[in-house]
Amino acid sequence: MINSQTLKGFRDFLPLEAKKRQFVIDTLKKVFESYGFEPLETPALEYEEILMGKYGEEGDKLMYRFEDNGKRKVALRYDQTVPLARVVAQYQNKLPMPFKRYQIQNVWRADNTQKGRYREFLQCDADIVGSSSPLADAEIIKLVFTIYQALNLDITIKINDRANLADLDKKYVSVIDKLEKIGESAVLSEMIEKGMTNEVAKKALKELQSKPQTESISQILTSLKQMGCDMSKIQYEPTLARGLDYYTGIIFETIAKGSTGSICSGGRYDKLVGIFAGRQIPAVGFGLGFDRTIEVLEEQNKIPSQPPAAKALVTVFSGELTEKSLEVTSLLREKDINTEIWLDDDAKMEKQLKYADKKQIPFVIIIGPDEAKNNTVTVKNLATREQKTIPIGQLIDLFKE
Amino acid sequence: MINSQTLKGFRDFLPLEAKKRQFVIDTLKKVFESYGFEPLETPALEYEEILMGKYGEEGDKLMYRFEDNGKRKVALRYDQTVPLARVVAQYQNKLPMPFKRYQIQNVWRADNTQKGRYREFLQCDADIVGSSSPLADAEIIKLVFTIYQALNLDITIKINDRANLADLDKKYVSVIDKLEKIGESAVLSEMIEKGMTNEVAKKALKELQSKPQTESISQILTSLKQMGCDMSKIQYEPTLARGLDYYTGIIFETIAKGSTGSICSGGRYDKLVGIFAGRQIPAVGFGLGFDRTIEVLEEQNKIPSQPPAAKALVTVFSGELTEKSLEVTSLLREKDINTEIWLDDDAKMEKQLKYADKKQIPFVIIIGPDEAKNNTVTVKNLATREQKTIPIGQLIDLFKE
Repeated sequence: MINSQTLKGFRDFLPLEAKKRQFVIDTLKKVFESYGFEPLETPALEYEEILMGKYGEEGDKLMYRFEDNGKRKVALRYDQTVPLARVVAQYQNKLPMPFKRYQIQNVWRADNTQKGRYREFLQCDADIVGSSSPLADAEIIKLVFTIYQALNLDITIKINDRANLADLDKKYVSVIDKLEKIGESAVLSEMIEKGMTNEVAKKALKELQSKPQTESISQILTSLKQMGCDMSKIQYEPTLARGLDYYTGIIFETIAKGSTGSICSGGRYDKLVGIFAGRQIPAVGFGLGFDRTIEVLEEQNKIPSQPPAAKALVTVFSGELTEKSLEVTSLLREKDINTEIWLDDDAKMEKQLKYADKKQIPFVIIIGPDEAKNNTVTVKNLATREQKTIPIGQLIDLFKE
Repeated sequence: MINSQTLKGFRDFLPLEAKKRQFVIDTLKKVFESYGFEPLETPALEYEEILMGKYGEEGDKLMYRFEDNGKRKVALRYDQTVPLARVVAQYQNKLPMPFKRYQIQNVWRADNTQKGRYREFLQCDADIVGSSSPLADAEIIKLVFTIYQALNLDITIKINDRANLADLDKKYVSVIDKLEKIGESAVLSEMIEKGMTNEVAKKALKELQSKPQTESISQILTSLKQMGCDMSKIQYEPTLARGLDYYTGIIFETIAKGSTGSICSGGRYDKLVGIFAGRQIPAVGFGLGFDRTIEVLEEQNKIPSQPPAAKALVTVFSGELTEKSLEVTSLLREKDINTEIWLDDDAKMEKQLKYADKKQIPFVIIIGPDEAKNNTVTVKNLATREQKTIPIGQLIDLFKE
């Protein structure tokens, strides 16, 4: 007997969970498309050289890489931004520009697993490629607001411009990125550790904290206001840094009310596509953390409970009466009523009812000898435990109610 | 500059293609759920020992396997049946029995690539675990008919019982499996090559061809008739063999009219789950070949053309008039009309119209100085090239028509 287990950081999604997730995915898709974004899918495996070196040292380390049977060096999708950059380069003449796409696929990272962090997880991205206008940045941020409005979550978006951090060495940027998490004094200690004197570190941090809005930020905020955004939900935060190397302009994070940490973040990356296209093509977009978003939705009880696929279970009374049950099943299905039939002709009725209860199927239909003789069916409502016997002809009406 | 290319046998799906595929997936899901099947998802990576040895030598060879960073031997999903067997064993006490699930995920096989054969491809499976009744077999076959009816494809299902092949050594079964493809004389030659005398080979084949229906087959056919199936679309074929090792009962293939080769096949496998569960749990199901199905649908022109996400593009006339365009965009989106806005405030109108044409967005909305002054918009129908200027208040009605 083989030990049945999944790898650490990898998950099965049983039906109830899978349906909750699908509900959120459907909401996201609907909003993406309401803004005119179109779906894109890229392969799980890419040539390693496409992905390597785009996410910093950390990324290279966490990437799933191996040699395939043909000795090609390949890697599993690590995010959806680099594959997008490749796609834009590869099909430049075919794609409309600006290219607005959304992508909802799994990515894989061999990270330490901890609560809410997995090695296989779904990312939901939307990007606009081919526009350097602050209007595109504003549209991306407005899209985030609309998504969380559709999901019924109250959010705040923190925004900054990478230009504010341009004077700081990369090693300090990654320290400042932790400001909210570890606090000012810990950040200062780390900056000193990395080589600044106490005085210089304090001054650098203070200067950063008091940086006025850049022109980009001002333009984006103006557009967001014109788009009808609630401006009290947008915070300019000059110390916001974001980890990824490829950002070149605005960066932002999304915080859900009553929760900490970003659930959706992104920014402008005007140089990434150029690595593949050979000419600069500007881009802006975000990745929505699906698991974190689901987690917050669950905490706030905001995912509607998902009913079972079937509205009715047609039971099988006996071998001789199977045909009658098959007939009723066909009748219901033809009228677009999702219906299961019990798939055995010698099970006790009790067992069949228990099954319907466990799956929470709302109605059970029984066709015993009396019902068969009289062309009737007995319908049992499992929530109320009420049952009534009605002519077969009235069955459809009952469900259409 | 990095060479932008995908690995052989791996594909990008650009928006039009992705939407066609989504259309077919949505149809499949709807039918699966109308029969009471529930969604399941399993990880892309599993412990190698879960997958190895379940698909025969060929399978082990074609599997993507590697060592992860923690030196675990892992493999990419090769089909969805073995992961299902693991899931059933792992969550036995949690799942309702019979467990009816569908699964629509990618699988990976390092096979030779050729027309219509890929290394990453989507499988769409439905299985019933926990029933050994011929009713379950019949339900699975009826489901295949309903799926292809929903997709508007005329199909025939060939059916056999593995019991018919029980007396034959495995090496001959795989030869007989090729009967339709390579013809009788070639099959005989191969059987002789593998060790039979000419006479014995001829006799074995003839005996097989004249085998009467087994009891299982008869029962299944009776149930299918009672379910209202068109029995002329079901063929009993005693030489049908199917490649996979794990089948133990009925097996079947689906042939689309005007096409060759199976587009959806399956059967009963009563011993596979037991390898994980430690006790025998019967199961029956199928895997639908998504790419082959799409191919046949395309050949027969049966996938409706997919409209762009956006119904309208709001153009931007100039920097000063951007605000007006943003207002109209918000107005349309609030009324659930999918709308794009041009994301730049200094592009020529011609360029904006070309973009709408390329994306086939049906309506373009123009707000120039006159329109802004009069609180009107000009709406251009890109198909007819007609345009009219109307008060903003009438815009929604125009789209609701």
